Amino acid sequence: MATLGFIGLGIMGTPMAGHLLAAGHTLFTHSRSGTPESLIAAGATACAHATEVAQKADIIFVMVPDTPHVEAVLFGDHGVAAGLTPGKIVVDMSSISPVATKDFARRINALGCEYLDAPVSGGEVGAKAASLTIMVGGNEPAFDAVRPLFALMGKNITRVGGNGDGQITKVANQVIVALTIEAVGEALLLAAKAGANPAKVREALMGGFAASRILEVHGERMIKRTFNPGFRIELHQKDLNLALATGRQLGVSLPNTATAQELFNACAAHDGSGWDHSAMVRALEKMANFEIGQPTPAA
Amino acid sequence: MATLGFIGLGIMGTPMAGHLLAAGHTLFTHSRSGTPESLIAAGATACAHATEVAQKADIIFVMVPDTPHVEAVLFGDHGVAAGLTPGKIVVDMSSISPVATKDFARRINALGCEYLDAPVSGGEVGAKAASLTIMVGGNEPAFDAVRPLFALMGKNITRVGGNGDGQITKVANQVIVALTIEAVGEALLLAAKAGANPAKVREALMGGFAASRILEVHGERMIKRTFNPGFRIELHQKDLNLALATGRQLGVSLPNTATAQELFNACAAHDGSGWDHSAMVRALEKMANFEIGQPTPAA
Repeated sequence: MATLGFIGLGIMGTPMAGHLLAAGHTLFTHSRSGTPESLIAAGATACAHATEVAQKADIIFVMVPDTPHVEAVLFGDHGVAAGLTPGKIVVDMSSISPVATKDFARRINALGCEYLDAPVSGGEVGAKAASLTIMVGGNEPAFDAVRPLFALMGKNITRVGGNGDGQITKVANQVIVALTIEAVGEALLLAAKAGANPAKVREALMGGFAASRILEVHGERMIKRTFNPGFRIELHQKDLNLALATGRQLGVSLPNTATAQELFNACAAHDGSGWDHSAMVRALEKMANFEIGQPTPAA
Repeated sequence: MATLGFIGLGIMGTPMAGHLLAAGHTLFTHSRSGTPESLIAAGATACAHATEVAQKADIIFVMVPDTPHVEAVLFGDHGVAAGLTPGKIVVDMSSISPVATKDFARRINALGCEYLDAPVSGGEVGAKAASLTIMVGGNEPAFDAVRPLFALMGKNITRVGGNGDGQITKVANQVIVALTIEAVGEALLLAAKAGANPAKVREALMGGFAASRILEVHGERMIKRTFNPGFRIELHQKDLNLALATGRQLGVSLPNTATAQELFNACAAHDGSGWDHSAMVRALEKMANFEIGQPTPAA
């Protein structure tokens, strides 16, 4: 059994670390808000800082909110880098900038260590159920070494390519999900305003080329008006911000991602940061002065 | 066996009419370009104009390119309306304006006849194979009367609601398809420009919430650069024009449909009107000065 480290014990990190402990691994932990009692009771050893975690563990997992947090955990005061010795592996499971990730990987590699970027999708539910989708970038030997540990936390585990490729795959996923929600929103709202029953329209479309899991799940949410999360708009805003910033850095125009972000911003203006992301349709509805659930206008 | 009429014998109408003949129905036909020899040989009777078709048939199918053609066929000189007597059924299988459709239906109803709007998806291939998806708007008794005839031409047959609901469902379908193609294009282009292998990214995404038939089929086209149609951009431009015109009439803003139409327009500017609609990604590629198939830039 490898000696493991886990830094960042929020709503995602805590259940993920729990799965590693449950499999019998020795686990050293650190988190801004302290190590939860449940993990201590399960055998985790809390460390004073990330440097100590990196000194004691062979494979160090990081699960924090955003790019600056990863940079601080890795290279800040009492950071991971200060505790590394050659041969260790750093695994960043946060969802952060693909461009910054390549830089972080180079700096970790320069210390004689391997780096994997391994963002996840599936949210809190997937973290608890150990059913996360894990998209990995990095060297194949490092991936092979960590793969059995990923399998304790997730189900659909793919090495896409070198460093950064895991992060860009996560960004691509979030772009497609947001834009498909927007597409379903435009289509169902137009149909409802024309007087059609949006539930019937959705049913008819599910048989053809417009079919998707988004039409199925989020389309139903729009019709039934169930906008409790699910996946919160403020989290998807962070992801689209990553997409737009990456597009700007790489010189790629993302016109519909930009519009989708603006529609999320409009939801936030209506106190909707905590709504499920399917509620993006509400921004379209504000513009149309009409809601999908409303009685249809006279024909 | 009912006596049938079929007006509009283009690449869609000819095989559709052929299926009705093959089932043993008496068929009276009219088309701008004349009735094809193959249909005459199969037993069709060519009429001088639409009025004559309406006089002789109990159920009259119309399959012409766009709203003005349907209006001319129904209400123009020597049109269908002039030949109708109470109790007949007019079935418009063209893809046209949902708003105009409600008006056409009212005018046909005023003559004591039923009206169904029944646009299809599936294209020439589906028309030949009798596997069209048929989205129907109109009264249930009329739908029940025509359903066995629809079943000779298609497979996935849904009555969505009253008149216009078939057309708006087709429009909704085309909006979702175009916007999902655009979403997949933004995502794969961004990933490719970041240096990831777009085929690997597509594979990784197929397991999760970003999965769709568009990602599967059109995503593969973007990666393999197979832009022979398929479904031509100029046809999808017509459909998005219907969506945008309907949105304008009803007061519904469709921001991403508008952008998708502009991207199709950019393809047309590069002589791409005849490309498959998945080639919408080429407009994004022009802006990024980078193509998905290109060698990835140095990391």
